[in-house]
Amino acid sequence: MSDPVSLLAEYGKKIDPIMEKYLLKNANPEFQEAVLYPIKIGGKRVRPALTIISALAVGGKAEEAYPAAAAVELAHNYSLILDDIIDHSEVRRGYPTVWKKYGLSTAILVAVHYRESIADALSDTRDPKTFHDIMARTIKLLTDGERLDILFEQSGREDEPYIVANRYRKISLEDYLNMIEKKTGVLIETSCVFGGLSVGIVEEEIIQALREYGRNIGIAFQISDDIIDIFGDARKTGKKVGGDIKEHKLGNVVVQLALEELGEDSLLYKTISKPEVSWEEVAAAVDEIKKTNAFRRAEKLRSEYTLHAISALQKLPASNYREMLRELAVFIEKREF
Amino acid sequence: MSDPVSLLAEYGKKIDPIMEKYLLKNANPEFQEAVLYPIKIGGKRVRPALTIISALAVGGKAEEAYPAAAAVELAHNYSLILDDIIDHSEVRRGYPTVWKKYGLSTAILVAVHYRESIADALSDTRDPKTFHDIMARTIKLLTDGERLDILFEQSGREDEPYIVANRYRKISLEDYLNMIEKKTGVLIETSCVFGGLSVGIVEEEIIQALREYGRNIGIAFQISDDIIDIFGDARKTGKKVGGDIKEHKLGNVVVQLALEELGEDSLLYKTISKPEVSWEEVAAAVDEIKKTNAFRRAEKLRSEYTLHAISALQKLPASNYREMLRELAVFIEKREF
Repeated sequence: MSDPVSLLAEYGKKIDPIMEKYLLKNANPEFQEAVLYPIKIGGKRVRPALTIISALAVGGKAEEAYPAAAAVELAHNYSLILDDIIDHSEVRRGYPTVWKKYGLSTAILVAVHYRESIADALSDTRDPKTFHDIMARTIKLLTDGERLDILFEQSGREDEPYIVANRYRKISLEDYLNMIEKKTGVLIETSCVFGGLSVGIVEEEIIQALREYGRNIGIAFQISDDIIDIFGDARKTGKKVGGDIKEHKLGNVVVQLALEELGEDSLLYKTISKPEVSWEEVAAAVDEIKKTNAFRRAEKLRSEYTLHAISALQKLPASNYREMLRELAVFIEKREF
Repeated sequence: MSDPVSLLAEYGKKIDPIMEKYLLKNANPEFQEAVLYPIKIGGKRVRPALTIISALAVGGKAEEAYPAAAAVELAHNYSLILDDIIDHSEVRRGYPTVWKKYGLSTAILVAVHYRESIADALSDTRDPKTFHDIMARTIKLLTDGERLDILFEQSGREDEPYIVANRYRKISLEDYLNMIEKKTGVLIETSCVFGGLSVGIVEEEIIQALREYGRNIGIAFQISDDIIDIFGDARKTGKKVGGDIKEHKLGNVVVQLALEELGEDSLLYKTISKPEVSWEEVAAAVDEIKKTNAFRRAEKLRSEYTLHAISALQKLPASNYREMLRELAVFIEKREF
């Protein structure tokens, strides 16, 4: 069996031309370069790989899952194009973000085009109405997760009246988990469920197993993201350490757990709430975090979700593909970038 | 029979609670006010009225068309929320635009939520796959129309690399008509087609008649918009005259036809190409337009589309509802705001 990284790359390659097909449908030739740019600059292709392997794990063929796999990766890219606008992010995967490269208006139009390409892909699935419905719910929840993530920021966006008026000044671990379940968990859950539905599985027990597996690795995936943001190796990630602190995000599990120990008088809380923060101040806040148990507790929390995900797999028939899903869960837990 | 204005208002009222139902589906209570804001501030409800009357005109019941009628009006609002961001517009229907009221991030999230509410509505139609497919094509074409409209601008957006690199320096009447067919015609065409499909009509001749009627009144509708922008009565429209000139838009039929007569040495062309334009300069350019035949020619062009639309109605069975569609076409032609 291939290692998980090559596995993702292998399935990713299969899905890229399918995404391209849907993106080029009803696209003006003058617009094609901009429309293809987000998928050309790469990405791990975790979600379509999950759709395909889920389909295989319940006894289907990979090809049956291709339109749904393309849809979930297009949905992921759709959310990234918009998130980068919302977060004023200028670089992704080492390349300029869509708005940075083409401008805000074009980025919005590209994003809209992505959403319609998702619809085009979903109509090629086995049961379009069901797939369209699940995707609509998924994107609404994802949007709500993004909304909460922004409202958990402790400064900035002074020109955004809704955010200023509705900020959360304190969040609980439960608030955090609710936010990441929506922001990251639900689309990964849908990626797995789509695999099952793509091959015509209707047994609620099997679908429920895929749902639980997906949601739980999705949450673990986001916890990994948060840990990497604060403790990652810049040489591997290509990003400066502590970006979430610089962006005032209370919605990072490490920050959240550290603040439970440090309280609001801490350097960390002051740094996160300051309108403008230098990278030196971020580094000092990260040093403060290192004195707490936040890293250990975040890892422990992530392990619980990974274990829950792996245990859900027991409801699926034993196979090499089920084993791949288990390995992917472990990979997500251990990933360093 | 009611006059067209009361007719639109009457059907609009019927569709508002249906749109609300789809918008509130999977909406966080904290987000509901922002999500409902765009439809609470009004709108003429032309598109859902067309869907319902089209359904009635082919022998169906109004209720059968409600989900599709809600979908087209949600799609219209979806495009307005994003257009207002793209055009930096601060006021719509006398109220702050969504981004102005809530901030850019929130406006983007509201727009995304609208798109998923469209999907929720489409899944309640008679034939979800067909409706989803038509809507995906419609929104992709609408997006392309918006892209062209921006590329027809003669100045501004210097921070948007795609626009600066791809501007059209000259456009033909054909380019203009292609742009407005996409920007305005296609969604109005879809509004009418959805009426027929909502009651189970499959005869290509009937659907084709609704399609032609809709596309042609859509184009006439946009020509009216353009004429009103340049020659409208500010007391009726609530807008200053010549907004399109201030926004450097070559994609206004009056501007386009006037420039055919005046050429590039005109005050009009200089004004439209200037990075910053005062309202006094706009007024001077409008005075120059008044010396041309542009107004008369624009009206004549619009009449041709209206007549084409009305003649397409001959393929529908004679009824009071067909007469309503004819009256709406005339109303669109004669409207002053």
